[in-house]
Amino acid sequence: MAKVSILGAGAWGTAIAILLGNNGHEVTLWSALESEVKLLNEERELKDKLPGAKLPESVAVCGELEEACRDKELLVFAVASPFVRNTAKIARPFIKENQIVVNVAKGIEESTLNTLTDILKEELNHADIAVLSGPSHAEEVSRGIPTTCVVGAETKASAYFIQDVFMSERFRVYTSPDVVGIELGGSIKNVIALAAGIADGLGFGDNTKAALMTRGIAEISRLGLAMGGKMETFAGLSGVGDLIVTCTSKHSRNRNAGFLIGQGYTMEKAMEEVNQVVEGVFSAKATLALAKKYNVEMPIVEQVNLVLFENKSAKEAVSDLLLRDKRREYSELTWLE
Amino acid sequence: MAKVSILGAGAWGTAIAILLGNNGHEVTLWSALESEVKLLNEERELKDKLPGAKLPESVAVCGELEEACRDKELLVFAVASPFVRNTAKIARPFIKENQIVVNVAKGIEESTLNTLTDILKEELNHADIAVLSGPSHAEEVSRGIPTTCVVGAETKASAYFIQDVFMSERFRVYTSPDVVGIELGGSIKNVIALAAGIADGLGFGDNTKAALMTRGIAEISRLGLAMGGKMETFAGLSGVGDLIVTCTSKHSRNRNAGFLIGQGYTMEKAMEEVNQVVEGVFSAKATLALAKKYNVEMPIVEQVNLVLFENKSAKEAVSDLLLRDKRREYSELTWLE
Repeated sequence: MAKVSILGAGAWGTAIAILLGNNGHEVTLWSALESEVKLLNEERELKDKLPGAKLPESVAVCGELEEACRDKELLVFAVASPFVRNTAKIARPFIKENQIVVNVAKGIEESTLNTLTDILKEELNHADIAVLSGPSHAEEVSRGIPTTCVVGAETKASAYFIQDVFMSERFRVYTSPDVVGIELGGSIKNVIALAAGIADGLGFGDNTKAALMTRGIAEISRLGLAMGGKMETFAGLSGVGDLIVTCTSKHSRNRNAGFLIGQGYTMEKAMEEVNQVVEGVFSAKATLALAKKYNVEMPIVEQVNLVLFENKSAKEAVSDLLLRDKRREYSELTWLE
Repeated sequence: MAKVSILGAGAWGTAIAILLGNNGHEVTLWSALESEVKLLNEERELKDKLPGAKLPESVAVCGELEEACRDKELLVFAVASPFVRNTAKIARPFIKENQIVVNVAKGIEESTLNTLTDILKEELNHADIAVLSGPSHAEEVSRGIPTTCVVGAETKASAYFIQDVFMSERFRVYTSPDVVGIELGGSIKNVIALAAGIADGLGFGDNTKAALMTRGIAEISRLGLAMGGKMETFAGLSGVGDLIVTCTSKHSRNRNAGFLIGQGYTMEKAMEEVNQVVEGVFSAKATLALAKKYNVEMPIVEQVNLVLFENKSAKEAVSDLLLRDKRREYSELTWLE
């Protein structure tokens, strides 16, 4: 059994607290919001986002960052991407040398184009930073529905340790050394899910969406390989697996926000309606900037940006994607003659 | 404009007749069943499977195989897999030297472990055999919903010719030299879709299904690579793309049959209820035999076979898949130290 703190008591942080509590660990769930701490302590449940999923008794809820960070074997960063850097800065004095930290949030910082583990490595350069990702809607994890993730770490020892903490009969954890690939798969898929939702909202079919998703995973792989990620990762749980769940599940905020945009909502109205952080909107610009930096073609990401930020009509954007020149599916494969 | 015949007037053959007719070609749609020819000629519609989708005037429906095969620039084989060899045998005398033939059906012959293009190459060894595949439910293609496929051929000239015949604003065709990879992706995904449907029928979640699909595409790739297919194909439209649509669409017979099995139906009852050919049931045994022949691990395919043919309970099969030992996601990736 390990002493674990989870920083961030949103849907994902809370679902992980339930999982790790049920695994028998001594768990602290920290929130920056006093109201959230009070509510979780009273109700032992995140009523609006994870209705019916109770925190086990072994989970303590606290609002003191120092208390949350001191003497823990594992720190889980479950803070929404825009708050990761600042939370790390504030927590730094309380975090010990070689502390194992695992990021479970997804996103890319717009101003620096850093992944969240990049940010944590910068802000906590005395700690050992890892990432956990995969097709894992919080709603389902909180209800014990079988889920599979992958943990990426720089050393095998850290990867195996985090695997042991999270692993249960209903939460399977694989390990990988490809931290950057795992980060990118998890972040960029949100942008593709917006596109898939837009196609759904426009009334296109399952064929159309599957084609978009396939081209989407190709875009993610192209950028990811250019940035040092591994093809196996993009073909795996945190690549295609997470893309599938994000593009098709009713729980997916990114897909649902895209759906509303396809139906004619503005980006702002769609985010209001979905009423949770729509990570893909934050990642869209950053991903496009990365595509330019690494000189990689990402037509879907490009069109999503035009729709979100340049008032391009959703219908026109999807048409432009579908009507690109005919070509070979993979330019590397060649005929014999 | 080309003279094209489509052999087989099931849902897919008929949807292709509509597509190619609308593309302006001179199309003949052949069926071995007199009743089907009569009905299609009278109603100009496949009422039970593609309601509301009318054949364009340029499509002639005929029951004469010789007439269908003579003087055509392209023959489309849209015959369900169990009938491909026999149809090819009977058609052989009417098929000219170097005739371009494209197979659009999916499956593996149980007795020989041949793909459908293998069969056509054997039976029509004087013809030029290609394949067209991808995420393309007939119901959606018949209604003009944007769809993307890939054509695999041995020569670039044939691939480009078939691409030109099929290509429209709403039906995008890519080309590839990887015939065997395209065949395998299209066939084996039906077995994985049975597994995905079973998980749905058991009441598991989107996380579970995405994990199964991800492990499924890994299984397909392992076997496909061992058989000479290319990784790019399994990551593409006829691999992951077709897998996505088959595992998630309401139109998917394989997924729907699996769903019923997950709910407690026997395989026979499920096939009866779905009331169309459930290709994955035919391909399951053949795929398992291929896995053994090429010495490749395919745990999902194995469990599907146990459920279909050995009365293993669906719940136990999915549990056995989920509870496999913890491991690294990709054994090829290694840590630095």
